[in-house]
Amino acid sequence: MKKFRRSGRLVDLTNYLIHNPHQLISLTYFAERYDSAKSSISEDLAIIKEMFEARETGLLLTVAGASGGVKYIPTASLSEIKTFLTELCSKLEDPNRVLPGGYLYMMDIIGNPKWMNEIGRYFATMYANKKVDVIMTMATKGIPLAYAVATYMNVPVCIVRHEHRITEGSLVSINYVSGSTKRIQTMSLAKRSLKEGSNVLIIDDFMKAGGTIKGMINLVDEFQSHVVGIGVLVEADHVEERLVDTYTSMTRLSEVNTKEKLVKVELGNFFEKLSQIKED
Amino acid sequence: MKKFRRSGRLVDLTNYLIHNPHQLISLTYFAERYDSAKSSISEDLAIIKEMFEARETGLLLTVAGASGGVKYIPTASLSEIKTFLTELCSKLEDPNRVLPGGYLYMMDIIGNPKWMNEIGRYFATMYANKKVDVIMTMATKGIPLAYAVATYMNVPVCIVRHEHRITEGSLVSINYVSGSTKRIQTMSLAKRSLKEGSNVLIIDDFMKAGGTIKGMINLVDEFQSHVVGIGVLVEADHVEERLVDTYTSMTRLSEVNTKEKLVKVELGNFFEKLSQIKED
Repeated sequence: MKKFRRSGRLVDLTNYLIHNPHQLISLTYFAERYDSAKSSISEDLAIIKEMFEARETGLLLTVAGASGGVKYIPTASLSEIKTFLTELCSKLEDPNRVLPGGYLYMMDIIGNPKWMNEIGRYFATMYANKKVDVIMTMATKGIPLAYAVATYMNVPVCIVRHEHRITEGSLVSINYVSGSTKRIQTMSLAKRSLKEGSNVLIIDDFMKAGGTIKGMINLVDEFQSHVVGIGVLVEADHVEERLVDTYTSMTRLSEVNTKEKLVKVELGNFFEKLSQIKED
Repeated sequence: MKKFRRSGRLVDLTNYLIHNPHQLISLTYFAERYDSAKSSISEDLAIIKEMFEARETGLLLTVAGASGGVKYIPTASLSEIKTFLTELCSKLEDPNRVLPGGYLYMMDIIGNPKWMNEIGRYFATMYANKKVDVIMTMATKGIPLAYAVATYMNVPVCIVRHEHRITEGSLVSINYVSGSTKRIQTMSLAKRSLKEGSNVLIIDDFMKAGGTIKGMINLVDEFQSHVVGIGVLVEADHVEERLVDTYTSMTRLSEVNTKEKLVKVELGNFFEKLSQIKED
């Protein structure tokens, strides 16, 4: 195998780490990959670490010892998060989004992988220190964001659905009451798609009263598993009775006036919560 | 702003390019980002280009002139694709996947973002030279792969659905006949989510007779748009009458014996087609 120079190693190492987040990789692996001494690899990693930290795009944790190695944790800086979310809020305030019934058209935002990945990285920053085994979401519109978070955290996704599908084997189904419409609905999850005792991070696109999320919490319970966090892209404000109390929201829909086609969107509680965590 | 050394620039440039594929970025942008001369940036990019090409993880195209710059095109090598797809086939052959009705449980594979991203990169390699404006997929299980492809190609996703949702505004709906069950079904797409005259790449998880895909093709037609390609994760073999004739498939399900719990999966036509393209 060809021996690599530092410059080439830095490029390939960066590429490798970005594609393998939250995974402990031994220095031996890299030493063999580049036919280089471990001491050289350590120096490379120090350069990458310095740059990632300067840019606040990620942390590089080094674990010493025989079973040690290096682990890349993707992060985002408060300033870039604020800039992005502020732009997102103003995009959401476009009056052309207002649909009959006070709904907002959001598929242009959810349909944009770049934005989903960006927001996914923010949630991954928030929950970086929590033990998360799996991301749970609700079909259909929660899926893109859930996968973005899962990619940055290197964990699988399980998808809860309203309908029963014969292509997933045995299901666990629960009934739940939609918080806004008060209707009884059913949600199901394939038995095989969540192991008992899992630590679950729930991600969804929208939360009004929280009935769907509450349903997912109950479903996690049915699987003898544990909810470690709840993250939503947009929460609706002015909800009489919120069924879920601890969650993080990227944005908050504070007003939708269908008649006057007026939408007001502000920052959700995510930004403040992350600021507090980063201060500590 | 701090002046960056080559080593730091290489790390940050690699990170930046990976997160902004299929996008022309001017050298001026990078020169300002690093407070460095354009000639230095050109040298950095030459190092990255050499490394990406040696690893076959991507191409770096440089466009000369005032409006020029550099564009990163993610790719995958034939050997890594073959290794990965062969492993995928043997995973799919696990007899425990067989469900009543001859269906296969695949949510563990679809639920794994790393695998979806990997396969997404392969499809992005296949269609790298085609003009693709948007990826179209069918809810629910096509979504993860569609977003993976879209991320690598830097284009949006539009999601076709079986049910009507009031949260997406006006819809265009069509009836289609499922090729395997011969039932008449409906699929819809929000009017706003696909512009007239778009070049559409259709991505889905599974194709049997191709009724769903044929429906999507008709839907693209309704939007005065154009299908530039069709890619599926798994195609079922032994189909009496295939409704779609040009497509690429990662794997081919050649046998499912529910009684004896036997599954046979082989490489689809993707690998051969890509080999031919790479030879030309």
